[in-house]
Amino acid sequence: MRDVAIIGVGQTKFGQLWDKSLTNLAVEAGVKACLDANIDQKDVEVIYGGTMSGGLFVNQEHIASLLSDFSGFKNIPSIRVEAACASGGLALRQAYIDIASGLHDIAVVGGVEKMTDIGGHSVTKALATAASQEWEAFFGATFPGLYAMIAKLHMHKYKTTEEQLAMCAVKNHKNALNNPFAQFHKKIQVEDVLNSTMVADPLKLFDCSPVSDGAAAVVLASKQKAKELCDAPVWISGSGHATDALSLHDREDITTLKATVEAAKQAYVQAKIGPKDIGCVEVHDCFTIAEICAIEDLGFCKKGEGGRFTEQGNTEIGGRIPVNTSGGLKAKGHPVGATGVAQTIEAVLQLRGEANGRNTNAEIAMMHNIGGSGGTAVVHIFRR
Amino acid sequence: MRDVAIIGVGQTKFGQLWDKSLTNLAVEAGVKACLDANIDQKDVEVIYGGTMSGGLFVNQEHIASLLSDFSGFKNIPSIRVEAACASGGLALRQAYIDIASGLHDIAVVGGVEKMTDIGGHSVTKALATAASQEWEAFFGATFPGLYAMIAKLHMHKYKTTEEQLAMCAVKNHKNALNNPFAQFHKKIQVEDVLNSTMVADPLKLFDCSPVSDGAAAVVLASKQKAKELCDAPVWISGSGHATDALSLHDREDITTLKATVEAAKQAYVQAKIGPKDIGCVEVHDCFTIAEICAIEDLGFCKKGEGGRFTEQGNTEIGGRIPVNTSGGLKAKGHPVGATGVAQTIEAVLQLRGEANGRNTNAEIAMMHNIGGSGGTAVVHIFRR
Repeated sequence: MRDVAIIGVGQTKFGQLWDKSLTNLAVEAGVKACLDANIDQKDVEVIYGGTMSGGLFVNQEHIASLLSDFSGFKNIPSIRVEAACASGGLALRQAYIDIASGLHDIAVVGGVEKMTDIGGHSVTKALATAASQEWEAFFGATFPGLYAMIAKLHMHKYKTTEEQLAMCAVKNHKNALNNPFAQFHKKIQVEDVLNSTMVADPLKLFDCSPVSDGAAAVVLASKQKAKELCDAPVWISGSGHATDALSLHDREDITTLKATVEAAKQAYVQAKIGPKDIGCVEVHDCFTIAEICAIEDLGFCKKGEGGRFTEQGNTEIGGRIPVNTSGGLKAKGHPVGATGVAQTIEAVLQLRGEANGRNTNAEIAMMHNIGGSGGTAVVHIFRR
Repeated sequence: MRDVAIIGVGQTKFGQLWDKSLTNLAVEAGVKACLDANIDQKDVEVIYGGTMSGGLFVNQEHIASLLSDFSGFKNIPSIRVEAACASGGLALRQAYIDIASGLHDIAVVGGVEKMTDIGGHSVTKALATAASQEWEAFFGATFPGLYAMIAKLHMHKYKTTEEQLAMCAVKNHKNALNNPFAQFHKKIQVEDVLNSTMVADPLKLFDCSPVSDGAAAVVLASKQKAKELCDAPVWISGSGHATDALSLHDREDITTLKATVEAAKQAYVQAKIGPKDIGCVEVHDCFTIAEICAIEDLGFCKKGEGGRFTEQGNTEIGGRIPVNTSGGLKAKGHPVGATGVAQTIEAVLQLRGEANGRNTNAEIAMMHNIGGSGGTAVVHIFRR
C-alpha cells in the first residue's frame, strides 16, 4: 500500500445554520479544502463522503452523486459511506484505502449533516436509528439513555463522579473559545453543568453534544502528488476500523468500547507507536462519559482512571495528552456525518501549527470517531 | 493493485418476504456465500454492504455494525456504502479496491433491502430520495415519472415503440422461469404488458420492476487466497464507477446515461476488451426503457437502435448478447441495495456454467448497476 497525505482542509462554521442547505454546506467545505490544497476541479479524481442519514434528516439519499454534481466534479466516482456518527471517519479511511491502493491519486473526503430543519421526525428519533431498532430503539432507548447506562456503570465500578464528567465539558468549552468554527463560544463552570437540566440520569444537558449543521472536507494525495503539490503534507501513519455488537446488552463490558480498543490497536501497530507517542487527540465526546471511556480505551490512562486523569488536568492543553483542543463534539458541535472529518482537520491544524490559540506543538496526532454507542470505531494517527 | 477473485456466492429468494427481517435476509445470504466459498467465520477479514435506505425503509441505519454482529463476525471492519439502487454494485467495487490494495485478503460483500413492511412512508416516496429532493422529488417527480420522460424522448428521437419496450419485460419474465430465486415465475406476452395499468405514460405496470425484499452476497479473495481456496475462481477483470448530474434537467441528453458510458469505458479499458467480447450481461432494467438505454450505452448496439436490437432477438439467450438471463430487475425482483450483488451472482453462475436452464456458455460476463435515474453507474467485467 502506498503512503497517503492530507494536503488540504476546509470546514464550515458548525451550528444552527438555517440559511444553508446540506448541499451548500458540503460544497463550501469541499471548495475550501481544494483552495487550501491549491488544486483545481480537474485534479480531483474521486470523492468520498460521510453522512449518517440524509434520508431521515433531509429526505435525500444518493448524496454522493448530488455533491459531485454540485461541486462541479461531474462524472467522477463519488462514494457515500455510512456508519452513523462515524460516517466521516469512515469516509476518510475508505479514501485512504483507495489512494493507498494505487487506483486514484487525489481524493476529496467530505463529511456533512444538516440536522436542524428536520421535518416529520424528531432528531432524537432519527439518531436512534444508529442503535438497534429491534433491541433498543423500539423499546424507547435513545442515545442519552444508552450513554447514561454506560455512565452509571462507570460511576459504580470506578467511583467516577458527576463532577469529573462535567470537567470534560468545561475543558471542551474552554478550548472552543479559540476555534472560530465552533458552535459554542461560551465558557462554562462545573456548577453550570451540574445545575443544567437532567436529560438521562446522570447526564445533564451540558454533558451532551448539541444538534448541529455543518460540513468538513480534506484533500488526500498519494506520496508523489503530495510532494509535487504541498510543502507541509500531513501523513496518515495509522488507520484502524472495528465494529462491536450494536446493542449494549450484547457486550462483555459496556464501560469498555471494544471497537475503540481494536481500532486503536490496528492504528498503533501500523504507525509503530504507542499512546505515549501521541501529542494530541480528538476523541468522540458525544457525551462527557464517552470522552472518559475513550481516553481509557485508547490507552492514555488505565481503565477506570479516566475521571481522575481528567480531574488532574492531564487532558488540558499543556497537560500530558491534550484532548479535544477543537472544543470536541460538546462545544465545537456534532453534525454527525461531518464529525470524523472535522476531527481530522483539527489534527492537521495542530501538526501544521495552525491551531491558533490552542496549539500543542504535537508532532503526532490522533482522531477517534464512534458510531452509535460503540458499534463502530475509526481511529487514525497522523504525523508531520 | 492485486488481482481479485469471487470465490463464493449466496442469495435469498427475492419477493414479498413478510416473515423475514432485513437482518434475517442479510445473514442468510452471507452464510450461503461463505458456505459456497468453503470458508469459516474466522477467515472473513472485512465486510462491505450496500443498502439504499435502512433509515426510511426499516428505521435502521448503522447496518454495517448490526450485520457484522449478527453474522458472528464481531469486531472486524464492516462498511456500508450507499448509492441508491447502485448500492450493491458500489459495495462490490469498494471491496474490490480494498482487497486489491493489499489491506485485506478475504471480504464478504453483501447487498440487502427490506422494502415491503415500510411504516410511515410510502415506498415510492422513500425511493424518490434517490432523485434530487430540491429539483425533482419536491415537485412530485417519482421514478416511474422520470423514466417515463426518458422513454418519451427515446420514442420521439429514435422511433422506439411501446412494443419494443414490452419485449424487454417479456424476455426477462421468460428468463426468470429458470431462476429459482426470482420473484416472478410467470410467463407474459407483449399484449399483457401493453394492456397492463398505466403508471406513467408510456410506462405501464409490466414495464416497471417490482418492490422486493431480498439479499445477495459474494466472497472476494486476493489471488493467493483464491488459488488456495477455490478450484474455479471468477476474476474481476474490469471495474468502473461514474456519476452524472442527479437531476434529468441538468444532463446533456437524457436518453444517454453518461455515467454508464463513463463507467463502462473504465471497465473495458481495464479489462482490455470491448463490447463484442462480452458473452452475457446483467443490466439495470428498473424500467424497460432503462434496459434499452443500457444496451446502447454499454456499446452492444448504436444509440437509438436498442428497441430494434431487442425486437430482432439479439438480447435473448442464444442471441448476440444475452441480456438479463437472471430475469433482470423486472422479473427476478429489485430489492434495491441487493440488486448489484445479485447481478454479480448471475455473472458468476454463468461463468461457472451453473445457471441451470439459462446457461450461455459465456467466458466473459458483465454487470451494470444504476443509482437513481443515472446519477451513479457501476460496471464490472468478470472472466473465468
